[in-house]
Amino acid sequence: MESISVGLLGLGTVGSGVVQIIDQHQDKLMHQVGCKVSVKKILVKDTNKKRDVYLNGTRLTDDPNEVLADPDIDVVIEVMGGVDQTREYILKALENKKHVVTANKDLMAVHGSELLQTALENKCDLFYEASVAGGIPILRSLAEGLASDRITKMMGIVNGTTNYILTKMSQEGRDYEEVLKEAQELGYAEADPTSDVEGLDAARKIAILATLGFSMKVDLDDVHVSGISQVTQSDLNYCDQLGYTMKLIGLANRTKSKVEISVQPTLLPHSHPLAAVHNEFNAVYVYGEAVGETMFYGPGAGKLPTATAVVSDLVEVAKNMRLEVNGNSVVLPQYPKNLKSDDEINAKYFLRIHAKDQPGTFAALTSVFSGQNVSLEKILQLPLTEGNLAEIIIVTHKVSKLNYEIILQQLNDLDAVAEVKSSYRVEGEEN
Amino acid sequence: MESISVGLLGLGTVGSGVVQIIDQHQDKLMHQVGCKVSVKKILVKDTNKKRDVYLNGTRLTDDPNEVLADPDIDVVIEVMGGVDQTREYILKALENKKHVVTANKDLMAVHGSELLQTALENKCDLFYEASVAGGIPILRSLAEGLASDRITKMMGIVNGTTNYILTKMSQEGRDYEEVLKEAQELGYAEADPTSDVEGLDAARKIAILATLGFSMKVDLDDVHVSGISQVTQSDLNYCDQLGYTMKLIGLANRTKSKVEISVQPTLLPHSHPLAAVHNEFNAVYVYGEAVGETMFYGPGAGKLPTATAVVSDLVEVAKNMRLEVNGNSVVLPQYPKNLKSDDEINAKYFLRIHAKDQPGTFAALTSVFSGQNVSLEKILQLPLTEGNLAEIIIVTHKVSKLNYEIILQQLNDLDAVAEVKSSYRVEGEEN
Repeated sequence: MESISVGLLGLGTVGSGVVQIIDQHQDKLMHQVGCKVSVKKILVKDTNKKRDVYLNGTRLTDDPNEVLADPDIDVVIEVMGGVDQTREYILKALENKKHVVTANKDLMAVHGSELLQTALENKCDLFYEASVAGGIPILRSLAEGLASDRITKMMGIVNGTTNYILTKMSQEGRDYEEVLKEAQELGYAEADPTSDVEGLDAARKIAILATLGFSMKVDLDDVHVSGISQVTQSDLNYCDQLGYTMKLIGLANRTKSKVEISVQPTLLPHSHPLAAVHNEFNAVYVYGEAVGETMFYGPGAGKLPTATAVVSDLVEVAKNMRLEVNGNSVVLPQYPKNLKSDDEINAKYFLRIHAKDQPGTFAALTSVFSGQNVSLEKILQLPLTEGNLAEIIIVTHKVSKLNYEIILQQLNDLDAVAEVKSSYRVEGEEN
Repeated sequence: MESISVGLLGLGTVGSGVVQIIDQHQDKLMHQVGCKVSVKKILVKDTNKKRDVYLNGTRLTDDPNEVLADPDIDVVIEVMGGVDQTREYILKALENKKHVVTANKDLMAVHGSELLQTALENKCDLFYEASVAGGIPILRSLAEGLASDRITKMMGIVNGTTNYILTKMSQEGRDYEEVLKEAQELGYAEADPTSDVEGLDAARKIAILATLGFSMKVDLDDVHVSGISQVTQSDLNYCDQLGYTMKLIGLANRTKSKVEISVQPTLLPHSHPLAAVHNEFNAVYVYGEAVGETMFYGPGAGKLPTATAVVSDLVEVAKNMRLEVNGNSVVLPQYPKNLKSDDEINAKYFLRIHAKDQPGTFAALTSVFSGQNVSLEKILQLPLTEGNLAEIIIVTHKVSKLNYEIILQQLNDLDAVAEVKSSYRVEGEEN
């Protein structure tokens, strides 16, 4: 093997990073792979646009077939984003016997199974480490490092934007809207932040993690999602007082053969490893039956962190090419999909309630919980300055999601309750 | 390939864990490997001793050749410990074309190069993930997950015993001797704790990490080592006051082509990810030029965590057997050894000094630092109740190790100084 030719789809931030790393780390790549690695062609929208990356003779083209059908190109790296058209390009690349590396979580969360199956049929590699948690080699750790263990729980801080916002709100006492605006100015949040702040981006990543970690095909629609746009300073203050840190957590939980996948703002004890993951950093906490607690921490996005994950995948493709064993790393799911129903999902919850400051309120409240056979772990009651109301904070013991929703309904119907202001799941305490 | 036969050397804690995981996770192993995996024979000292592990027909033997020369055994797993005899066994296994998985840090730190070279010559795999940081898949992350990056710094909490002791001393205000005794009673520390508390165990692990991460053969003798047996409550109190957490850190640092490898009690800012690694947990912080900060956290020892790392290595051997590509994963060091001299090692230091409480003391002290052109970042002076002395705490700006040793010598020679009580390196602040 004299050299490996790469075709790149897209030359945005991550694409430029990929070109830069292949160029600057050529000696390390050659030492590992045993031959030169070079980018032959790059698909771009505008071939005339000025680029601030050194292209070293690489040809730019706006014709996808120039890359997808070039017989000299061994590996196609997809960093253009998007779903429908990108899916077609990748399918075509695989059918043309080109190995594929992609950083595209949207695509893999929705079409991952089809693409992996196609890769398998064409004896091609398809790697996607960069699609989850940027520079953290979490997919490889699940698939190989923990290969012999049975993973029962994953909790991921897998969206940097929301972690930045929650960190600043918690540490600096600032409001959601203000910190979001700052994050947008710093480039951490998009002009339309919906996908990040409503948890959709995290949902894609936890779907990919769950599919791989549980060896079970999980679809994006299976993920229950709620975001952070309703989180208030009051919530965070009371969390902190009760010993919790709030994080937007992608959760994947397995009990025997059944799983639950969700994304929600979640309270973790201050001492939990995930509670120390601040600002735009990501981390994935993995619990295995044999290994116990592990955590993988690092940058979840950014030009070079993401590009380094892409190029590490390329190194693996290249090593496989040298050994002529491409197409063997795809392990299709071992188990059929088996989702927990609401009465099988058990968790503790934090509630903040505005109730009437009058005799009998507390008895009425607690009877709602005892009616569902749920005991309370922590209770905090404080008077409010406005409207003869009291603020009541409750942390429950474990309750099924089904029963908890009945409780929420009954609390809202209660005459003594003005409003259930907020409700968050509590994780990371195993009692 | 109908099945894979394993020969085990040793049936202590980790060995029993390996047998247990292979037995209990057989369905997952078969799904990944494509055939049955079974332990055929186990080398033990006493074949008559009662074992509390279900052996499922596995034969125990006290004759090493029964394992090493059995043509049916494909993979030898070494979990017996020891160095000289174990080295001979592994060499013999490799020469007999058996793949080897070992959990033995003592062996790999001293004879790793020879064993890997022998594996390469015999086209055999030799994996040793469990030798560093137990259940954390750190070697695989360095070799594969960060394959495309250039790693410039690693800091590891790689000894659970010392991390347990320092955590308890810091959090509970207890003395070294008392916590060590407790750790011994709990089984976290050996009856002779020297290897742990004096940093020798950590030295072996950081030598292995540096060799792999920097692709440069580092010998155990290249590691400068100091341990935690001199750490006092006073040291920890002042550290905390100044915003630092003390950890025993295995440090590997690369500047251009030169490296420094050391183990010492080290002060890290409270906000550093390693500062939140408590009790017996391990973590390895890795800084790559492209990826930036990453950290890998988990259990550093224990029966099942270590065994899961061993069996994950076995899975990789088995996958390679199926593809007939064993013996290709050994990547020998790319660079010749190139160690920094003392004038090329730069760090900040914390000093605690007992000085005479008299006019001119502070001027004399500071002139020692300015004489080596070193400025001071933090200074704290407090009167002592005994002997007309003052306690002075200093944190320096960066200074070369060469100059710092001159400073220490001059301070000790100074009439105004009663004693330099302690001195620690400060890491994790890049200014």
